Order: sequence, then C-alpha cells, then structure tokens
Amino acid sequence: MAFLNDNYLKLKAGYLFPEIGRRVNFFCEQHPEAAKKIIRCGIGDVTEPLPNAVVTAMHKAVDEMAARESFRGYGPEQGHEFLRKAIAQNDYRDKGLDIADDEIFVSDGSKCDCGNILDILGSDNFIAVMDPVYPVYVDTNVMAGHTGPANELGAYEGLIYLPCTAENGFVADIPKQKVDVAYLCFPNNPTGAVATREQLTKWVEYARVHDTILLYDAAYEAYISEPGIPHSIYEIPGARECAIEFRIAPFALVDAIRQKAAR
Amino acid sequence: MAFLNDNYLKLKAGYLFPEIGRRVNFFCEQHPEAAKKIIRCGIGDVTEPLPNAVVTAMHKAVDEMAARESFRGYGPEQGHEFLRKAIAQNDYRDKGLDIADDEIFVSDGSKCDCGNILDILGSDNFIAVMDPVYPVYVDTNVMAGHTGPANELGAYEGLIYLPCTAENGFVADIPKQKVDVAYLCFPNNPTGAVATREQLTKWVEYARVHDTILLYDAAYEAYISEPGIPHSIYEIPGARECAIEFRIAPFALVDAIRQKAAR
Repeated sequence: MAFLNDNYLKLKAGYLFPEIGRRVNFFCEQHPEAAKKIIRCGIGDVTEPLPNAVVTAMHKAVDEMAARESFRGYGPEQGHEFLRKAIAQNDYRDKGLDIADDEIFVSDGSKCDCGNILDILGSDNFIAVMDPVYPVYVDTNVMAGHTGPANELGAYEGLIYLPCTAENGFVADIPKQKVDVAYLCFPNNPTGAVATREQLTKWVEYARVHDTILLYDAAYEAYISEPGIPHSIYEIPGARECAIEFRIAPFALVDAIRQKAAR
Repeated sequence: MAFLNDNYLKLKAGYLFPEIGRRVNFFCEQHPEAAKKIIRCGIGDVTEPLPNAVVTAMHKAVDEMAARESFRGYGPEQGHEFLRKAIAQNDYRDKGLDIADDEIFVSDGSKCDCGNILDILGSDNFIAVMDPVYPVYVDTNVMAGHTGPANELGAYEGLIYLPCTAENGFVADIPKQKVDVAYLCFPNNPTGAVATREQLTKWVEYARVHDTILLYDAAYEAYISEPGIPHSIYEIPGARECAIEFRIAPFALVDAIRQKAAR
C-alpha cells in the first residue's frame, strides 16, 4: 500500500471554501426557491462580465491563434517576453519602481503561487502569518508538513500567528522573535485593512535585519483609492532584497474561458 | 536566512527543457541567420494554428463572458460540471468505459498534474519509472525529496528504473520487487512505444497484488491508430482500483486537434 501525505489529516474539517461550497449546494438542493436569493459571502466571486477592452483583446488573440502566420505555440515557462515586459513597464516602471522584465514570472494565479512557492523553500523555517489569515497560506503549509497539529482553537503548532485587532488597526505588529518567512497581504483578505508606508517600512527593515523572506500578496491592490497608501511592497526602499510580490495574473482570467471553450 | 529546498541541488545540470532552451537561444543570438533554419527537437511544440471548430468555440466563450446574462465567475476546483460530464461521456462512456462525471478532475495540464499529484503521496514510497523516462516524473520526485543524489550516469538513488530496450519492445517489464508507485506512459514519451492489452493487463494484475498506484500518462493517446491497442488504462478490468490516468487538458487538447487537422 502506497504511503499518503498524512499531513492532510491535520487539516481542520477540510479546506474552508470547498466546505462552504458543499453546504451551500446542499442547501440549494433542499430549497430550490430560496437558492435564487442566496448572497454568497464565501469565495469573493466576480459579479460583472469582462470589460470591453478585455473582450476585444481576447477576440484578437483567438484570431491570432487561428492563422498560420500569427499563431503561437508553448510559451516560455516564465511567461511570454512581451507580457513580462508589459507588466514590468505598466505596473512598476511607469510608477517609478525599478523592476526589470526578467523579475516578472507569469503563472496561473496568485493563489496557486502562494501555495506553489513553498516548493522552493525548506521545511525548517519559522513562518509567520497574520491572524485572521487567508486560509491558503496556512493550509498549504500544513499540507507541506511545515506545522504540527491544530489546537482546539484551530491554530497550528509551529506557526507564528500575528494578531490583527482593532487596537493595531488590523495591521500585524512586527514579530518579537526572528521569523524566516512572513506572509503579508494588503489590502488584507479577510479584513480589508491596508498598511501605511511607515508600517511597511518597519516590515522591510525587520526583514533585512533578520534575513526574512516577505511573501507579499498584493492581489487586491487595484482597490486602493486612498492617496499615499503603497500599492506595491517595492515602493519601500530595500524591499527588492527581501520581498516576493504576488499579483493577480492575466492568465487566471483566460483559464475560465478555455474551460468554456472546451464545451 | 530562510531555509531553501536543497533537493534542487541534486538536479543534474538543471531541468532538461529549460537547458535546451538556453542553449538554443544562445545559438540564435550568435547566428541570427542560421536561427531561421533551426528545427527544434526539444519540447515538441505545435506546428499548426487552431482548427476552425476551436476558434469558433473560443470566440463564443469570450462573447459569453462579455455579457451580464451569460458570464461565469470562478468555477469549482474540480472543473465545471458540464466539462467533466463531457469528458466522462465522450472520452470514456461512449467507448464503453464505466467512468462517472465526478471521477474527472480538470486541471491546467497533465504535465503539471504529474508533478502535483506527489503532494498527496507520502515520502516513503518505492517509486518505479521506465528508462528512458519523461524527465518531469523523475525531476519532480527529486525536488520533493523522494530520492537520493544522482550517480555519474544521472540515475537517482532510491528510484527503481525499468529498462525499455529493443529486447522488450521498449515496454518495461513488470518489476521483480514490490513498488508502491509506478509511472507508465503510453504512447511513450520519448520512445513512442505503445503497450498491448496483454502487457497492460499484467501491470494491473501486478498493481492489484502489490497495492501499487499506477500513474498512467495517456497524454498521447490521440496518436494511437493501430486497432486493439488500449487508449486508456481503464480498458483493463480492475484498473479503476489501482490507476490514476492523466490526459491532456482542454487547452492541450486544442494542440492535438490542430495537429490532427493539419494532417
């Protein structure tokens, strides 16, 4: 009998979102009329169709793939050069941030990346997460065997939880001990809190002193409207030496579409 | 300083395909005129554009995503129900194979899956691979820490290599010892060999006796033209108890369709 990854047994009652999905589906089956009025507060799904600029670009891309003169085969593992350049230019250099094309890695989404990045890390790191925390940061570490079992409150042995409370404006304080890896997410999922330039500067200073890797999830940066709030960790001097930033990838969008195209 | 996954240090001279890519790019830069005539035998890239049926379906899907009445948000983790049903029906049930919709998992490609499947397996399995072997099976096990170092011939300690030679028609013989996990790939990458029903039956019988998990990569099944050669491991009685089959995902399917359309 093959050995399985028994770290999964440590997960509490299954991963949060599939569990919500199972319960919602069960309710809808039992109450088909009420199902129409459900407001789903689990996964933050989209509510509006694609904007016109995206639709036009995607039609153009499909046409490109339809002609021998213009179709493209497999792209490079890091993403097409033209796309990496466009991201580095528009999202970073145009905003005064010094990011080279070859520092951009195009994947299938920042959520997958937050899990997959663990593949290149070792198993003996002290890992800090904000509390409350986006479940994927914790659960992927549990599955990878980086934690002990959960206690009765659902907190995993070996992880360092940094409380986000009304007292600290829902922005985690710098850890008192040395940590090797810290997950930061601003605007935060689930609280919506943002970090100021001063707060992020403290994190970068901490990381440079302690050789900490900051895994900075900026998936929601487009929602920042307040002037002066950093949209990228790379707005903080020194961040390039200690931070990996995750943003939503264009490819995630395409994923939904190709599944539909396969019908 | 954070700990890194030092299993990567065991990899021999980097992963094969990126290394080929680096050398080809270097040559092209040095010899821009000769570059036009290069025939790339590394990654088997596509040579033809998308066929009309795919182009039409993709345009339709984009239009669906453009209207409030028809757009879709995040799909279920296992893939949209309509797609899982279409795969189970067309690829399996229509061919007399008893596969339920909920046995289909739609991902971003069989290559990714061959690596990601290791996440659910433990680290103490005896793992067998055919030799020669598609590099991703070996390298993902190396990265996951399931092997020792490579010897001077590039073979990794702890993996069980099953020779595929002219003598056995390039189809691996059943292992003499018990293995927990075996990778099979037919039609084979890189040799192109296919396995007969009798050969696959022996593998399934072996797997059921030894509780072996067969990871069956059928990515190239569309190329089988000889009558009687199984297209799926599930054509063999008992395979559902011991085998996980990987096939090309819808996007990869498009590649095969366009090559077929070009013939």
